[in-house]
Amino acid sequence: MSDTGSGKRQIHVCSLEMPTISHNNYGLWAHPDNRKHLYHTIEFWRDCAREAEAALLDAIFIADVLGVADAFGGSMDTSIREGIHIPELDPMLLAAVGMGATERLGWGVTVSASYEPPFGLARRMSTMDHLSDGRIGWNIVMSYHHNADENHGIAPGSLPSFERYERGDDFMEVCYKLWESSWDEDAVLADRENGVYTDPRKVRRIDHAGEYYSCSGPHMVDPSPQRTPVLFQAGMSDRGRRFAAKHAEAVFFVARTLDGLKLSVEDLRRNASAFGRSREEVLAMVQLNVITAPTMAEAEDKVAEFQKWTRPEGYLAHEYGMSNFDPMKHPRERLLDEALALDGLTRQDSGTYGHGPEATIGEIIDAAADIRNEPMFVYGDPVTVADQIESWFEEFDLDGYLLRNYVHPGTVRDFGRYVVPELQRRGRYRTDYEGSTLREHFFGPGRKRLADSHPGARHRA
Amino acid sequence: MSDTGSGKRQIHVCSLEMPTISHNNYGLWAHPDNRKHLYHTIEFWRDCAREAEAALLDAIFIADVLGVADAFGGSMDTSIREGIHIPELDPMLLAAVGMGATERLGWGVTVSASYEPPFGLARRMSTMDHLSDGRIGWNIVMSYHHNADENHGIAPGSLPSFERYERGDDFMEVCYKLWESSWDEDAVLADRENGVYTDPRKVRRIDHAGEYYSCSGPHMVDPSPQRTPVLFQAGMSDRGRRFAAKHAEAVFFVARTLDGLKLSVEDLRRNASAFGRSREEVLAMVQLNVITAPTMAEAEDKVAEFQKWTRPEGYLAHEYGMSNFDPMKHPRERLLDEALALDGLTRQDSGTYGHGPEATIGEIIDAAADIRNEPMFVYGDPVTVADQIESWFEEFDLDGYLLRNYVHPGTVRDFGRYVVPELQRRGRYRTDYEGSTLREHFFGPGRKRLADSHPGARHRA
Repeated sequence: MSDTGSGKRQIHVCSLEMPTISHNNYGLWAHPDNRKHLYHTIEFWRDCAREAEAALLDAIFIADVLGVADAFGGSMDTSIREGIHIPELDPMLLAAVGMGATERLGWGVTVSASYEPPFGLARRMSTMDHLSDGRIGWNIVMSYHHNADENHGIAPGSLPSFERYERGDDFMEVCYKLWESSWDEDAVLADRENGVYTDPRKVRRIDHAGEYYSCSGPHMVDPSPQRTPVLFQAGMSDRGRRFAAKHAEAVFFVARTLDGLKLSVEDLRRNASAFGRSREEVLAMVQLNVITAPTMAEAEDKVAEFQKWTRPEGYLAHEYGMSNFDPMKHPRERLLDEALALDGLTRQDSGTYGHGPEATIGEIIDAAADIRNEPMFVYGDPVTVADQIESWFEEFDLDGYLLRNYVHPGTVRDFGRYVVPELQRRGRYRTDYEGSTLREHFFGPGRKRLADSHPGARHRA
Repeated sequence: MSDTGSGKRQIHVCSLEMPTISHNNYGLWAHPDNRKHLYHTIEFWRDCAREAEAALLDAIFIADVLGVADAFGGSMDTSIREGIHIPELDPMLLAAVGMGATERLGWGVTVSASYEPPFGLARRMSTMDHLSDGRIGWNIVMSYHHNADENHGIAPGSLPSFERYERGDDFMEVCYKLWESSWDEDAVLADRENGVYTDPRKVRRIDHAGEYYSCSGPHMVDPSPQRTPVLFQAGMSDRGRRFAAKHAEAVFFVARTLDGLKLSVEDLRRNASAFGRSREEVLAMVQLNVITAPTMAEAEDKVAEFQKWTRPEGYLAHEYGMSNFDPMKHPRERLLDEALALDGLTRQDSGTYGHGPEATIGEIIDAAADIRNEPMFVYGDPVTVADQIESWFEEFDLDGYLLRNYVHPGTVRDFGRYVVPELQRRGRYRTDYEGSTLREHFFGPGRKRLADSHPGARHRA
């Protein structure tokens, strides 16, 4: 964990992106100032990259999913109509096109470890780390989405979550061996005089034969600046949280409730410690919603403006995605409990918690689609926002945030213009990049490689 | 097939790249003017891209391999020492970083269909086609390399070539359904007024259940400019050549002998016709070696200069890669037949054909490493080179060439400066790009999509 010389712990911030139309803030793609609909162009990703680097963010983090949600309303229709994670492009290719527009900004890309053997993914990561000069990170995902399974020839339900993480552990072993042990640091000689590029005595097979994966090696790629990409994780299940505590260098949370966030971070700290990893070696970061402007009045206007463009369908699909309850099928004035009774549902199996007995359908729709109800939401002038960010940071023992985007490139630009200078004044935020790699952004200059206590490090030659 | 208004058939040219140190021209990476050792940087691929576009090439084509050759000398040592296809980066990521430096140039990337399910690859291709505005092509490879198999957990020898292509056919069916039929052309409405991004009635599952692959869909990506990327193939086995004749829009050949090339092209034309595909719908292209300069004397100097930097090890490993015969273990003056007898080998099982009975080890080493002995090699002033290129083009019923690179960016630059203007004068080469997509470069303006006779086209909605 780096500081800026202020003696205070530094706040790390990544921008949360998804190469789709609607992500988190549903309906806002249609806002006239939002360029999100250009997500399939090179220019869009270059612009995002430049804005994020101008704000001295640690990285752009790109989320992914490999199937379409179809629970809400009993079909994929809402997802498709609202553009919720479909279309969805391949994150790594977007990082590749954006990377060249920046010098220091890191990139965290989500790739599932569930559907292909590790060898190709390990090579893609090493390629990215070379091309970016050490700025790549990998968000390790074990897919569980039933349409994603179907897309890859796996019968839905045939692979329990627990086993996915067992496979994931084996997958990581292969990757660590390829990245950390297959090539010695000084294997590449590039000796033009004698025409020798690599010393063959310093490259070796890995001959991994695990329960799930076999891989001979050698790795096809010589050591890149970071060797192992910075490892991100956001596992939620018990087994997933253990996986994160073992492998991840940065763990992302969504705070559904503040109490829940507190417990989750404490749980991470405890689990990581059980794996022999210190407090400093695992960053805890949480999704953050910021609407800011020079003055409180302008920020309030902006909140109202964004609220105007939201569409409830996406929020409802998100909130009631696991049940078959669709409030939009009912008139607004109908009582929630009456609607549930008509649909043969209870509050519990519909997911409609926290509403009083007098709640109407209209009220619950408005509540779901109210951006002010999002967890970790803060709006206001720079001082107000920075106060809140610092206060959560301390209260929940965080290391940083994953900034959600309302509009592109407005959200990151506003954060960089208004909030960053205020955090810098408080000694909480870098005034320039101090290292060249993503791992150095997270852990300080000189820390290009995995910490010695990381399980990947014991494979070092 | 387009022409330039001259009434003559147009010659198509792609630059053949491989993201490694040594490919085809072994030892030349150490030449002082060669920037090939920067193959792991973004700048290198941007420079290549700009040179290729300045020369109005159809595309940069990036070869790949997923394992290390270890037959020559009985180990991987020569491959590793000489940098022959190791290190080897991921081709698609390089196309992604290079693409943004160009407006019209196409990109052909090699991806194996052997080691992962089709869904992810189909999405990556669609992503690339969107980002590049329709400039992506896929070189479909069925891997057979034994170290590549080992890297992916497949016991070497357990999957015969025939079955790989059976799987390949099934793989392609999934891809065609995702690309051509899962989304209607007008599915994306992007209706800001009503907040509707996609019409759900125009997106569908594919529910493919083949012998080897199952995939439900829907495709995660809306229709890109070409939908199906331009399909390349270079299969050599009987089954591979049938696969190419069925699926490929451009087939690449290496002419080991001119007679062999003639037979191969005739075979392709016959096979494609049996699949109901016309002469115009399948391009035949062959690897070409060009060293050119304004005058013959300068070209001769350049040949001698390049020859000076070659190292025989790579050529021998290439030529004798399937046998255990290593001429470098013998003194130069020893007779070839004596050396073979000492190694317990015959001419046939060593692969040393075409040498007289008096041949010495020194002679066969020099012959292997003589760049003038490469098939389809031509050097000289622009008129001499253009004469030869036109003559082969007609004689072998070709559609174009795959230009090998001696030095970067010198080879493509020289071709563009000296040969292209001469071919243009002859009405054989475009004077500007006429379309925007790779498929239009190959088949003429307006032909953004698969031909109606292509097997992928029958999946159209």
